[in-house]
Amino acid sequence: MNERGRFITVEGSEGVGKTSNIEFICHWLQSRGMEVVRTREPGGTPRAEAIRKLLLDPGHDEPLDDDAELLLVFAARAQHLATKIRPALARGAWVICDRFTDATYAYQGGGRGIAASRIASLERFVQRELTPDLTLLLDMPVVDAQQRLQSRLEGAGGHRDRFERERLAFFESVRRTYLERATAEPERFVVIDAGRSLDEVQAMIAEALDDRISPWQ
Amino acid sequence: MNERGRFITVEGSEGVGKTSNIEFICHWLQSRGMEVVRTREPGGTPRAEAIRKLLLDPGHDEPLDDDAELLLVFAARAQHLATKIRPALARGAWVICDRFTDATYAYQGGGRGIAASRIASLERFVQRELTPDLTLLLDMPVVDAQQRLQSRLEGAGGHRDRFERERLAFFESVRRTYLERATAEPERFVVIDAGRSLDEVQAMIAEALDDRISPWQ
Ligand SMILES: Nc1ncnc2c1ncn2[C@@H]1O[C@H](COP(=O)(O)OP(=O)(O)OP(=O)(O)O)[C@@H](O)[C@H]1O
Ligand SMILES: Nc1ncnc2c1ncn2[C@@H]1O[C@H](COP(=O)(O)OP(=O)(O)OP(=O)(O)O)[C@@H](O)[C@H]1O
Ligand SMILES: [Mg+2]
Ligand SMILES: [Mg+2]
Repeated sequence: MNERGRFITVEGSEGVGKTSNIEFICHWLQSRGMEVVRTREPGGTPRAEAIRKLLLDPGHDEPLDDDAELLLVFAARAQHLATKIRPALARGAWVICDRFTDATYAYQGGGRGIAASRIASLERFVQRELTPDLTLLLDMPVVDAQQRLQSRLEGAGGHRDRFERERLAFFESVRRTYLERATAEPERFVVIDAGRSLDEVQAMIAEALDDRISPWQ
Repeated sequence: MNERGRFITVEGSEGVGKTSNIEFICHWLQSRGMEVVRTREPGGTPRAEAIRKLLLDPGHDEPLDDDAELLLVFAARAQHLATKIRPALARGAWVICDRFTDATYAYQGGGRGIAASRIASLERFVQRELTPDLTLLLDMPVVDAQQRLQSRLEGAGGHRDRFERERLAFFESVRRTYLERATAEPERFVVIDAGRSLDEVQAMIAEALDDRISPWQ
């Protein structure tokens, strides 16, 4: 029987470099012989991506209720876990996920103001015993990260999704919640200074992988 | 200040006549001077109807996970409650809903086998204190109801949604769960023999409305 794979999540507010660095992480692990499954939340499977669309849709006259948003996030997560993440881990693959439940605490909790205890009850409901083995939190000041995103937004014709339309105070609260979670669970989190150059950030990530999760350390 | 309106739900397995009789209920109440809001679940608002689409979609190679299905049902319900049901009740309107949480116990509980306690925890999460004032359960043998549906299915080019594809045993279990719930909460439920003619069914419904919920009784 295979050893269970590892579950690595990459977190942080908009524009800190999650997607850019996941590419690097996947190469790093593949070059060490791992089977790597790269995925993201909300989404990761066709049905879960369909739920993501509903979450990001700015809609027209109908605001999305906060509880409905939270339940959609966990519906997508249940589908993603059942269809992709749990089967991959069971066969020994390493799963690298762009956002996971810490993002729910940060966005729906810190950002929208839903009580952490309500989120925790859904987390237990959907994940049971499963939590990430390692969470890389890319952290930097919100305004600097928003600067980075400008070019992407201009590329997309200025289209902003439901979250990208939020104000600075929302993202400050997202960032603060992420940092509080990292402080509360130092054995799971590594906080990376994402304001540095991409090369420096990748060097810090490689070090974290070596120190925290490499099977040969 | 207005008196809060009443919340009436109509339940039963496929083809028992929920949609047909809701028309009658709405007329009956309107002719007595009520403001009536007619709606259905899952759905009832544009965003909740978009969630309904995901629930009914037979999909291709990806089965919908049971927990994901349950969370989508409650996400749609949270949206429906916040956007339509609670505001209507607050202004004194009577809300008539084609299916509600009893259907979740019947389909996701009885049909799919999700534990009632898991459903109850989401019910509390989303509804808090709100429950229907009256639930009309249209009951009849599953095979007879399926017979009624044949013509509708032929009209729709034989297209069956995710639930209509289920087997007889699934619907037997749905029916049984509905009846158990009616037995457990006799003050809320009225069970109607839906195998009778439409006229007879409507007479029984009118009697139930008069006895149970008319403000003038
Ligand atoms: N360390 C870095 N230094 C400078 N620019 C960077 C760095 N990391 C990423 N970028 C650039 O910043 C922008 C945002 O990066 P990326 O899309 O990876 O962020 P993200 O965290 O995935 O954002 P989102 O939350 O919106 O998905 C991109 O244009 C990317 O090239
Ligand atoms: N009492 C009745 N006697 C005979 N036929 C009926 C009766 N009530 C409804 N029907 C017919 O049965 C079919 C199903 O009725 P209807 O669509 O109202 O059921 P439903 O409970 O809403 O079904 P679904 O669960 O699929 O929405 C329709 O063709 C309708 O005209
Ligand atoms: Mg990204
Ligand atoms: Mg109907």
